[in-house]
Amino acid sequence: METRPRPGTDLPDRLAASVAHAARPVEEIAAWLDERRQANPSTVERVPFADLAGWEFAPDSGDLVHSTGRFFGVHGLRVRTDYGHRPAWEQPIIDQRDVAILGIVAREIDGVLHFLMQAKMEPGNVNTVQLSPTVQATSSNYLRAHKGAPSRYVEYFVDRTRGRALVDVLQSEQGSWFVGKRNRNIVVEALGPVEPHDDFVWLTLGEILALLRQPHLVNMDARTVLSCLPVEPPAAGGEGASWWSGPQVRSWLTERKAAYALAADYLPLASVAGWRRTADEIAHDEGRYFKVVGVRVSATNREVAGWSQPLLEPASTGLAAFVMRRIGGVPHVLARADLRPGYRDVVEVGPTVQCTPDNYVGRPASEWPAYLDLVLSRRVRPIYDVMQSEEGGRFHHALTRHLVVEVGGGFPLGTGPDFAWLTLGQLGELTRHSYQLDMEARSLLLCLRGLTAASTPTVRTGGSR
Amino acid sequence: METRPRPGTDLPDRLAASVAHAARPVEEIAAWLDERRQANPSTVERVPFADLAGWEFAPDSGDLVHSTGRFFGVHGLRVRTDYGHRPAWEQPIIDQRDVAILGIVAREIDGVLHFLMQAKMEPGNVNTVQLSPTVQATSSNYLRAHKGAPSRYVEYFVDRTRGRALVDVLQSEQGSWFVGKRNRNIVVEALGPVEPHDDFVWLTLGEILALLRQPHLVNMDARTVLSCLPVEPPAAGGEGASWWSGPQVRSWLTERKAAYALAADYLPLASVAGWRRTADEIAHDEGRYFKVVGVRVSATNREVAGWSQPLLEPASTGLAAFVMRRIGGVPHVLARADLRPGYRDVVEVGPTVQCTPDNYVGRPASEWPAYLDLVLSRRVRPIYDVMQSEEGGRFHHALTRHLVVEVGGGFPLGTGPDFAWLTLGQLGELTRHSYQLDMEARSLLLCLRGLTAASTPTVRTGGSR
Repeated sequence: METRPRPGTDLPDRLAASVAHAARPVEEIAAWLDERRQANPSTVERVPFADLAGWEFAPDSGDLVHSTGRFFGVHGLRVRTDYGHRPAWEQPIIDQRDVAILGIVAREIDGVLHFLMQAKMEPGNVNTVQLSPTVQATSSNYLRAHKGAPSRYVEYFVDRTRGRALVDVLQSEQGSWFVGKRNRNIVVEALGPVEPHDDFVWLTLGEILALLRQPHLVNMDARTVLSCLPVEPPAAGGEGASWWSGPQVRSWLTERKAAYALAADYLPLASVAGWRRTADEIAHDEGRYFKVVGVRVSATNREVAGWSQPLLEPASTGLAAFVMRRIGGVPHVLARADLRPGYRDVVEVGPTVQCTPDNYVGRPASEWPAYLDLVLSRRVRPIYDVMQSEEGGRFHHALTRHLVVEVGGGFPLGTGPDFAWLTLGQLGELTRHSYQLDMEARSLLLCLRGLTAASTPTVRTGGSR
Repeated sequence: METRPRPGTDLPDRLAASVAHAARPVEEIAAWLDERRQANPSTVERVPFADLAGWEFAPDSGDLVHSTGRFFGVHGLRVRTDYGHRPAWEQPIIDQRDVAILGIVAREIDGVLHFLMQAKMEPGNVNTVQLSPTVQATSSNYLRAHKGAPSRYVEYFVDRTRGRALVDVLQSEQGSWFVGKRNRNIVVEALGPVEPHDDFVWLTLGEILALLRQPHLVNMDARTVLSCLPVEPPAAGGEGASWWSGPQVRSWLTERKAAYALAADYLPLASVAGWRRTADEIAHDEGRYFKVVGVRVSATNREVAGWSQPLLEPASTGLAAFVMRRIGGVPHVLARADLRPGYRDVVEVGPTVQCTPDNYVGRPASEWPAYLDLVLSRRVRPIYDVMQSEEGGRFHHALTRHLVVEVGGGFPLGTGPDFAWLTLGQLGELTRHSYQLDMEARSLLLCLRGLTAASTPTVRTGGSR
């Protein structure tokens, strides 16, 4: 009989050991990122659409597309839904049918799991270079549609004999900006030695979690992949420690996914109501939501030396906030079943509040998202409040305030049907399968793990192995 | 602190007891179905599209739609993919955005779980009435878009205080006939007494599984809901009993979901190439695949007494076949990662072979689905070979031969990348979350459970409670 490779069943213990191990201070790693930024100079320049080499507005629809039909396109979308206060609207949206690999190579060093992180330039980053997955490439990239160099280390995610998958799951991205987007979130433990490279560094989970206490060091793609690691052991603290049981959580989410109607249909970008196109941008008539702009990029350490592309530029800073409350001594967050027009499965679990607060300026308070006023008020105690970046390969200076606020035991446990109190272990459980926990909630989950790690400063070395 | 209702953790034991309990013979239950068929006479009559009250061809697109915009519609779809032998085609497809509730009420009777099954007429059934879930209703029905009576027992699935969910998961339907279709597969254990009704009967799982050895008694909707019950205990037989570990199965499916490109875009039904519309039908030029036809229905025990609707009528009988092989003594089936244009997540796990064999008549053998010749050959031993019906509310006389063939220990374990050897427990595990195991594989899984139950005729009464 053939041999059967078996992933270890002690993964949560090994991850806990990696969380507990943080030899290098944040300053040292940030200095290394600075050094890589200077070693690999790049420029990003705003250009009119006419100067975006390879891109064009399709003659019939006005959609912004690449001449090869690859990479991604900007289309129009007509949305009708019975969720929220707006029954219908039209908007531009990014359509990217390519599945990206967001892949991290892992390896034990001195008995502790380390993760190979990349100092990667993306044109939309506020600080050009952030700590990124080992590989972050769409199939247009790793199949080399751009005719450039292959993505470094991509063989670990294409050739199954190179390692074993610790995590391998498709996840969504921003459902208001992408339609049907899904990425392969994958961590592969290498079976043999891994060749070093100047732009890559081996970090423990503890070191990465410490970096999350600073803004804009760990990019969105790294945050989503790492959030899917089963850090919390199954049924952490016993099933009884959570307010709801696992089957109750699944039933709640199924019911919410079935509760709302959503029709999201393509329409020509040229005919999207309320938006206008100039030589330099596609923007909302009132300046709300976002713009689509063009950039020309030159880089010294990417697969190709220079390229042009559109980017989506939000009009304002986003907010992703969890309300946290202890129930029976166990931290729970108030999660929301959130409908977005681009989600493949209509509704995913998001933070308590996820919005762009400036979009509500001048609107009646009755139309504000639930709990927005609470999380911004003095009635709550912020325990995490750090600005983080969305993906710089598609978004220009897209910043999201990551906020966790704690409320006391007097805070009511009863909620509306779109809300549920979940433990960190239950959030982690939702990441095991596709399209259940949204991008921003996954990002906050990872930040919360950093808080938990920091509040239990017991350093274990070596863990169970 | 509020009370927390807790589903029992002994569900697999209680389900095993229900499987082992089959007091009533098949003949008695079939006779009851006959009796209900005669007590509730109905007629189904083919009519031209012009006589379908409430339905019309949209003037701009030629799409077949209901005048209210509800229920469902027949649109055109243009498909491009790198999966299989056909890189592109166009076809009609059913678009039904409503989420249907496929719900079964469960209850312990004399210590054994019973399920409340309905003798339900559907216009497309070959035998008009089949055993169906307690409730089988789209939101257009249970929100009473048809202005008829409410669906009986629907309150168990709308009002959470009536019971606790044993299963609650969204699942797909036929990905070649529906686009993006998803149903809520739910089993609710009633907390109080349940009012009886002449068209409903309480059956154990063992009784239902015995009925599956006959054709066309248990309808498709009942089969999919019951397939999602966690009959196999977690990691049945120990993790080591399966050829692949759970993480390997998940990684294989994720990789296959990401491996293929699929673009499936609506186009006007009137412009679908290769299909033609007459006064009576929409059909393929060569008579392959399926037709869309119209029927007028009168019934005595449905929410409304009469209605008209389109139905999809397959050109020929379908085949869903699993190759089964023992590995280390444990039965494994050869599952296939199958791409269908209507799947919400592109690829799901299906049977070894799932096709309409007549569609391949006259085509070169190189274009036949893998293993089709094997499962129809004398080199294999059929252990299950029964015709079952697809859903009679949308399909007219859609019959699928359900086939399981056993191969010996000399059969190679090595397969192409789209195939994997999975245990019944692993198939069951895939049903816990949405869009992983397709309709036909779920149906075969339930039939296989019936075989397993039959080969261990130990009758236990009462089980663990």
